[in-house]
Amino acid sequence: MTEFSGIKALVFDVFGTVVDWRGSVIREGEKLGKEKGLDTDWAAFADEWRGRYKPSMDRVRSGETSWRNLDALHRASLEELLEEFEVTNLTEEEKDHLNRVWHRLDPWPDSVPGLTRLKRRYVISTLSNGNIALLTNMAKRAGLPWDMIFSAELVRHYKPDPETYLMPPDLLGLHPEQVMLVAAHPSDLRAARSHGLRTAYVLRPLEWGPGVEPEEPDSSFDIVANDFAELAEKLGA
Amino acid sequence: MTEFSGIKALVFDVFGTVVDWRGSVIREGEKLGKEKGLDTDWAAFADEWRGRYKPSMDRVRSGETSWRNLDALHRASLEELLEEFEVTNLTEEEKDHLNRVWHRLDPWPDSVPGLTRLKRRYVISTLSNGNIALLTNMAKRAGLPWDMIFSAELVRHYKPDPETYLMPPDLLGLHPEQVMLVAAHPSDLRAARSHGLRTAYVLRPLEWGPGVEPEEPDSSFDIVANDFAELAEKLGA
Repeated sequence: MTEFSGIKALVFDVFGTVVDWRGSVIREGEKLGKEKGLDTDWAAFADEWRGRYKPSMDRVRSGETSWRNLDALHRASLEELLEEFEVTNLTEEEKDHLNRVWHRLDPWPDSVPGLTRLKRRYVISTLSNGNIALLTNMAKRAGLPWDMIFSAELVRHYKPDPETYLMPPDLLGLHPEQVMLVAAHPSDLRAARSHGLRTAYVLRPLEWGPGVEPEEPDSSFDIVANDFAELAEKLGA
Repeated sequence: MTEFSGIKALVFDVFGTVVDWRGSVIREGEKLGKEKGLDTDWAAFADEWRGRYKPSMDRVRSGETSWRNLDALHRASLEELLEEFEVTNLTEEEKDHLNRVWHRLDPWPDSVPGLTRLKRRYVISTLSNGNIALLTNMAKRAGLPWDMIFSAELVRHYKPDPETYLMPPDLLGLHPEQVMLVAAHPSDLRAARSHGLRTAYVLRPLEWGPGVEPEEPDSSFDIVANDFAELAEKLGA
């Protein structure tokens, strides 16, 4: 425990780490499909929607397009997907509701109990590319007990831009090494580490559905855990 | 109730509205005074510290000084006050701890139960000149169940600059009239109203100690309430 005694705040990647975006998009898609008489493959739809996530942010990061929050990027991708999957009978209201499925993602079963336990000892916050409205609505619906919501939207830079990782230490009045990023994605953790944050890798083997193995952890990660209960155990919470 | 059915989020002024800054500063000051053998008048000390709050922000608002967060403004005022009150025997660590008394303010007795009730129906957030670290630490210690923490620090403008009032609607994806400011200060409410927000005036007759009457409400305020329980009642929460 002594090795982690300097840590004051835990900041969490959200999509895949705290919530099951794939299962949630499939669940809502199938419900919509029944209502609208669609025979869409919603697993493929979810994977393609998520597949456009990084490229759409990279266009903002490179300056190719000006700042747009994640709701707007999701909506632009959705328009392309609806055409590709030949879904032509949605009203504007239905499209808007479908786009906001990202505000209604379900947490992994261990997320709320694990966060509740970690919150007793640490400041817990998001550090997500999701916009503030998305993260606030998600937390309220799912009961995620955040102390603070840090979003790429607050600095108008998406991860892995440095501004995102430096925001929580700056605004919490902490040194980077007093802040630990918790994420299910090694690339996110490596970027955080390069800016001085501590790192915890939580394996989420079902993020992309059954049969897709998570990446191996780097030896440099401070913690590797199978869920938030094991993370809390290792952090003495 | 129908008149308020369009409201989605309540944003709260914090110092004086949610927490009792004066009683809390006096309480901690008296404890410190005993430890250090001081005969300071802590009620006068608290009032003078708070008295320098608006002038110190006005210097940032006018551009006379560059952006500094509230911890920094409080600290500069504290240095002046310690000299004025002839408190000369504090270590740097003790001064820093005293400055952070603003992170440890106690809520009014109705604040936590009222917010807990309001949270069931509305998104609830701060809208404060306090910095993020201050507001996060305060909420954690006092159990204030915010969904989000909006701070002047996020837009580097202090209230009543327009940027502060426009921030919650912008980041929550709402129209200004879907957001209500709750505050114990008519000037704050008038500024919010000028930018399209709804307004609730909560009377806090003890903010400046016994015998200082709160200002009369404007007839334009949407709600006037004596505490957060009455506010929740009027808002159907």
